[in-house]
Amino acid sequence: MTIKVAINGYGNLGRAVERAVNAADDMEAVAVFTRRDPQSLKTAGTPVFPLSQMADFKGKVDVCICCGGSATDLRTQGPAAVAYFNTVDSFDTHADIPAYFADMDAAAKKAGHTALISTGWDPGLFSIARTLTEAVLPDGYTHTFWGRGVSQGHSDAIRRIEGVEGAVQYTVPNPEAMRAVESGEHPQLTTADKHTRLCYVVAASGADKERITREIKEMPKYFADYETTVNFISAEELARDHAGMPHGGEVIRVGHTREGIKHLARFQLQLDSNPDFTGSMVAASARALVRLHEHGHRGAASVLDIPPAWYSPSSPQQLRAQLL
Amino acid sequence: MTIKVAINGYGNLGRAVERAVNAADDMEAVAVFTRRDPQSLKTAGTPVFPLSQMADFKGKVDVCICCGGSATDLRTQGPAAVAYFNTVDSFDTHADIPAYFADMDAAAKKAGHTALISTGWDPGLFSIARTLTEAVLPDGYTHTFWGRGVSQGHSDAIRRIEGVEGAVQYTVPNPEAMRAVESGEHPQLTTADKHTRLCYVVAASGADKERITREIKEMPKYFADYETTVNFISAEELARDHAGMPHGGEVIRVGHTREGIKHLARFQLQLDSNPDFTGSMVAASARALVRLHEHGHRGAASVLDIPPAWYSPSSPQQLRAQLL
Repeated sequence: MTIKVAINGYGNLGRAVERAVNAADDMEAVAVFTRRDPQSLKTAGTPVFPLSQMADFKGKVDVCICCGGSATDLRTQGPAAVAYFNTVDSFDTHADIPAYFADMDAAAKKAGHTALISTGWDPGLFSIARTLTEAVLPDGYTHTFWGRGVSQGHSDAIRRIEGVEGAVQYTVPNPEAMRAVESGEHPQLTTADKHTRLCYVVAASGADKERITREIKEMPKYFADYETTVNFISAEELARDHAGMPHGGEVIRVGHTREGIKHLARFQLQLDSNPDFTGSMVAASARALVRLHEHGHRGAASVLDIPPAWYSPSSPQQLRAQLL
Repeated sequence: MTIKVAINGYGNLGRAVERAVNAADDMEAVAVFTRRDPQSLKTAGTPVFPLSQMADFKGKVDVCICCGGSATDLRTQGPAAVAYFNTVDSFDTHADIPAYFADMDAAAKKAGHTALISTGWDPGLFSIARTLTEAVLPDGYTHTFWGRGVSQGHSDAIRRIEGVEGAVQYTVPNPEAMRAVESGEHPQLTTADKHTRLCYVVAASGADKERITREIKEMPKYFADYETTVNFISAEELARDHAGMPHGGEVIRVGHTREGIKHLARFQLQLDSNPDFTGSMVAASARALVRLHEHGHRGAASVLDIPPAWYSPSSPQQLRAQLL
């Protein structure tokens, strides 16, 4: 039985989801929904429909993958889609997860559907790593490092400064902070202690680079608390060297089982393309969502509720023989 | 509700399980079963009973943690215990897992019980890492490295050589092989390519060290295929520097989502004490087993069938707010 997938939104993530679904023997992309003019989208083969026709696909789709961003789209896109379908998304605003879960849980239960929220890598695989390693090493501490990778939000913030024509910001883990975490000495570290910010900026001709640098470094929340480096480069260099969207990071748990007996667990990702990898994880999560629904779950769930085997197309027998 | 735990076998692993259970607010160790004279065991407080009285505890124990070794004990200990209780074990002979699963599945179903087999770190956490990362990066390859850590089987094999009074063998990952795996070039590597073997040996007074070295290096299966280093040390040095049981290793998955777009996922453990960490994981698995049973599962299961949240004493709400 092939899993029929609809893709709701066709930006970088939607495209990556389509690639992952097309690469899977047990899944088939049957529709892309878009708010844009359907004629303007060039997919890898999936037919495109205006978002307004979504309701026509009720009963014809096993899972709708919502590919909107969590800052704005998903808070409304998720509940709207789960009224018609089982859904998967990559809602990633950590602080808003409980509220979003409650919204999705209510909307999914009302419709008799199942919603798997916040898949991807953080939240997602990193959440799984945090939960497992804390359960196994209860007397310990966890730190998450992000990077080296592009932060879209920080890049956007730089681009809004007057005289900036282009910018990419890399979040870079601080190796000294990482050594302190690994030491087992339970360091107290803020996010700013653990990361530095590296900016590549294209200034408009004649723009005051000192002012731009100052405005970046003093920007509250985004940069003010961080060690920030600003490099001015040409538009050509930006296009040539900084067009990718690499990311990654690591979750480190350090704990003791006895005085002097230390254990360290680390889950690390090094990703050439953040949307590509996220799309792959979200597509595997669609497979898990279908199984969660088949097992009778109605309402919202997260990756913490999903057995590892459910993400895989292999049978339980194969997995036990080959991967256990 | 406190989870009542019985511990079946009281070696290094049994002791570690008892420590982990005693450290958990939601679990209580109610009995240790032993084949030895119960008077001869000094536990951390758990009452000791002869194995022959196991049946008396039927209905009084939520989970029996079987702490025998998989080479001999567990193949009989597991099915015998699951006739009376829900069980958890750390069966770790990879090649025999399908047969052991079948035995435990039949015995557990017959008794209306649930058996969670092969918990620990490999199989266990490493199996989870292999399954998740393969599902997310289907176009790729996985390599598992073990060490630096003590292999009990290899240490024992050296101790059986004439003229050897003591020995510890460390399995050491080969950094060149690891770099090759990380490169994304899909290297073909055997276990012997990926590891070297480092031996610390105490020779009897007057023993022929050249012969001992030769016998170690030429030992089939254990050493012959490996780059092996033999160091002779004193009994004092062995006791002082090599009494611990450190271990660890890493699972590395490398995959592509498009031509030239590479992703690397790594799960790594550095453990001061292999039995301590395994005992901690097995104890957390006992909590998961109870939930699996409450959800109606009868028969055998593995860690691949367990949602991450089930290992944790925290509520789903807490986990979503704090770790997702």
